[in-house]
Amino acid sequence: MLTMVSALERVQRLYGARPAIIDREGNFTWSEFFDRVTRVAGVLRDLGIRQGDHYAILCRNGFRHAELIHAGYWMGAIPVPVNYRLAPPEIRFILEDANCTTLIVEDALIGLAATEELSPWRDRILYVAPGRTEVEWPQYEALLASTPPVDCHLSNEDDDAILLYTGGTTGRSKGVRLSHKNVFSNGMQVMHPMGIRSDDVYFHLAPMFHSADLLGTCFTQCGAAHSFLAQFTPAEALSAIQDFGVTVAMMAPTMIIMTLQDKSFDKYDLSSFRLLFYGSSPMAVEWIRRAMERFQGVDIQQGYGLTETSPILTPLDPAEHREALDTGEYGILKSTGQPLVSIDLRIVDDGDQEVPTGEAGEVIVRGPNVAKGYLNRPEENKRAFRDGWFHTGDVGSVDENGNLYLLDRKKDMIITGGENVYSSEVEAALYQHPGVNEAAVVGVPDEKYGEALFAVIVPAPGADLTEEQIISHCRERIGGYKIPRRMAFVQEMPKSAMGKILKTELRKIYGGE
Amino acid sequence: MLTMVSALERVQRLYGARPAIIDREGNFTWSEFFDRVTRVAGVLRDLGIRQGDHYAILCRNGFRHAELIHAGYWMGAIPVPVNYRLAPPEIRFILEDANCTTLIVEDALIGLAATEELSPWRDRILYVAPGRTEVEWPQYEALLASTPPVDCHLSNEDDDAILLYTGGTTGRSKGVRLSHKNVFSNGMQVMHPMGIRSDDVYFHLAPMFHSADLLGTCFTQCGAAHSFLAQFTPAEALSAIQDFGVTVAMMAPTMIIMTLQDKSFDKYDLSSFRLLFYGSSPMAVEWIRRAMERFQGVDIQQGYGLTETSPILTPLDPAEHREALDTGEYGILKSTGQPLVSIDLRIVDDGDQEVPTGEAGEVIVRGPNVAKGYLNRPEENKRAFRDGWFHTGDVGSVDENGNLYLLDRKKDMIITGGENVYSSEVEAALYQHPGVNEAAVVGVPDEKYGEALFAVIVPAPGADLTEEQIISHCRERIGGYKIPRRMAFVQEMPKSAMGKILKTELRKIYGGE
Repeated sequence: MLTMVSALERVQRLYGARPAIIDREGNFTWSEFFDRVTRVAGVLRDLGIRQGDHYAILCRNGFRHAELIHAGYWMGAIPVPVNYRLAPPEIRFILEDANCTTLIVEDALIGLAATEELSPWRDRILYVAPGRTEVEWPQYEALLASTPPVDCHLSNEDDDAILLYTGGTTGRSKGVRLSHKNVFSNGMQVMHPMGIRSDDVYFHLAPMFHSADLLGTCFTQCGAAHSFLAQFTPAEALSAIQDFGVTVAMMAPTMIIMTLQDKSFDKYDLSSFRLLFYGSSPMAVEWIRRAMERFQGVDIQQGYGLTETSPILTPLDPAEHREALDTGEYGILKSTGQPLVSIDLRIVDDGDQEVPTGEAGEVIVRGPNVAKGYLNRPEENKRAFRDGWFHTGDVGSVDENGNLYLLDRKKDMIITGGENVYSSEVEAALYQHPGVNEAAVVGVPDEKYGEALFAVIVPAPGADLTEEQIISHCRERIGGYKIPRRMAFVQEMPKSAMGKILKTELRKIYGGE
Repeated sequence: MLTMVSALERVQRLYGARPAIIDREGNFTWSEFFDRVTRVAGVLRDLGIRQGDHYAILCRNGFRHAELIHAGYWMGAIPVPVNYRLAPPEIRFILEDANCTTLIVEDALIGLAATEELSPWRDRILYVAPGRTEVEWPQYEALLASTPPVDCHLSNEDDDAILLYTGGTTGRSKGVRLSHKNVFSNGMQVMHPMGIRSDDVYFHLAPMFHSADLLGTCFTQCGAAHSFLAQFTPAEALSAIQDFGVTVAMMAPTMIIMTLQDKSFDKYDLSSFRLLFYGSSPMAVEWIRRAMERFQGVDIQQGYGLTETSPILTPLDPAEHREALDTGEYGILKSTGQPLVSIDLRIVDDGDQEVPTGEAGEVIVRGPNVAKGYLNRPEENKRAFRDGWFHTGDVGSVDENGNLYLLDRKKDMIITGGENVYSSEVEAALYQHPGVNEAAVVGVPDEKYGEALFAVIVPAPGADLTEEQIISHCRERIGGYKIPRRMAFVQEMPKSAMGKILKTELRKIYGGE
């Protein structure tokens, strides 16, 4: 069965005595983890959560977060892991949109639960703390120990498994309904190209409220172990890789860059580490090269996907990375790779007609990992999920080997004087300047051209950049109409929880959008 | 999409210029193979075959057989590859049961098509020959060249993909309806444990009318190449492995034993060969050990499955084989391994209740690779596919790591004096005798005990066996009530097309059944 319950039961039967959780707070075998999950389900039931209900989780990464999700899978209730970095009104919007009756909050985030916005849930909070605390709520571990396991209440692989909110980068948040089949299928799709082994140790660095964390599914399916970091810092990530014997980690480019720049990098023994998976936003080729050089002996793989696709659509495999490093031909690293098995991917024009190989258009996909749709968004469902295909809103092209090259989010594409400009191409040119640490290009209103290009640049430490330098640097690399004539030099970019630059914010600031 | 059409379109887009077919008659890339398939679909349409129709294929192994199957997938018609070694009345039964309007026959089997039993199809035969022949029927290649490609007519992954007849070993043949999702899913399930690579060359040795040949699905999905042998002989198999650069082959134990015994074995360069997959019937541990020793550097993997499961349920992986050889502890080789991802497997008693770990019972399974049911067999469907589980009719047990040990077909189990005896256990004891080449144990009617054990033995060349020797050999190994007191020494066993010993036949001969 393509359900996460089937996955958990199977590994408990096949790998019961092998490690499921490797953590500073304790290790658990798959049998022990299975037992905890079925008890947590009892705790949730005692809170009044029933099959089909949504419940919100406000927790940092950790094994209790994982068991709180699996308990929902087990009892047929739907976990809604929420980005705890959002403002309280944004969190309240999600809780109301999903009709969450119960809120599960970790001790470190107790301040959030006490805000006025979350007061309607004050009587329906499960408080998650590792041990004794000052508050009067029942102790999580004590509750768990005293609650007997409950029976499974999930029967259908098409039932919702998890509700993940997306769209922080594009305005009002939307809840993506991922079924058990969706999540399970993506695990099956990636386990082959990732070469998962039952003795792997996967490191949950990406926030567990983000779809990127679903990459952990294939490790559960294969009976591998999970380890966690509550909050990312480069030094803690490196020391955890060493201490937990981490073999595989998924990192956002920002995390990788911070880690590579960390002074303590060489202090750690990373010999267990075999695969670094990066994704969620493009990484400049220069940084990929540096990562491959510093993480020596570590395979590097990247993936492109969306919350709506559970999440991976295309991986670019380690062999491609190695070949690029060996030959010095880095072109393929601009690609996100080929669609996974059972994923149909096409590039279409505005009339939904497939465009010829190499030409740009919207990326549309279908496959068992594609979500059913958004919760409470009939209009957006009609637009995005039509004729059996999910319209990603991303603009890209494929080469003669089916490798996908992403150009832009459809709405980030700039139309200036009638010409289409992909911000990614301009940004790639900017990144080639040694004084540029980060760059983003957006369209701003322009009387003459409709839109004009505006570059926002974070200079490298000590770099003294001028507009003229940037323009002349670009002139040697890209066509005249693609050169940003207006720009701003800033200390920091507005970013999402996964380190994605928020262009919506940039357009507001610089374009008066 | 979980359809074979999606699989073919994807590899044509991703691996269009890479080899699909490596054959003595010519090599084709995936683009060329795709083009041929869409034209063959046109040929079938011109023969009057429509979406949903069944058409029979009477061909030996070869790339034309493969494209004739894919053409059906493409146009939404259902191929029925038929065992051409059956007697004409048996073939006629299948053609009528499946309501096949059209018959596709290879030149080498033309005599079969000319029999009286197949005369009703005489006007609806497509004749498949590599080149010019004496007969008046249109030439296959000429037809193919003059027929333009047709559009795909398949939309649903739950549609029937292929109809395979099974049950040659158990009486009247049943047509197993395998959907696109069934076949596609099993490919996804096995590609990870088999470690399929796009540069693999898979060798179709198992007959293509048998479900074992569906093991080739994962190679198509990964863009690997296919090669074929029309009729198995050890020397031709070995020379083809060398000439085609075969990397993976599936062989029945009989084929392996014949190959190992072939005098020309050492003449061939088998350096491309990386994985030998065996299955369809148990192989004595002694032969597994010999295979591992002679096929040095080749990984060995075995699989258990049925036509109804598309076909693989459990693989025993190369690592387990290597460890057994290294340590000399061969116990695990008696297991067929752990259930694949997304397969739920339980051992149940006659009341469908799960039995404790280690105890014997019927193997029941569910998963995306489990067939919808049999064609035209409402009663057998009700019995075998009930409460969401397929009842395999096999008796087995699982150990604490979920490894499956098969004991018997349920109906091959012998009840003698109130004791259950699994023929496999008695046979394993017999195989330990150096003078025994093949052994099968069946139950025969007995006045005193209800059933008595009867052993049929093929002695090794030169061995001079007596009943007393066999009985005293067994006495040292198994309990008294498991020792066969009656036996026959024979030159040859009755076998199925996959080399499975036909116990139904043995019971008829020795038990007067």
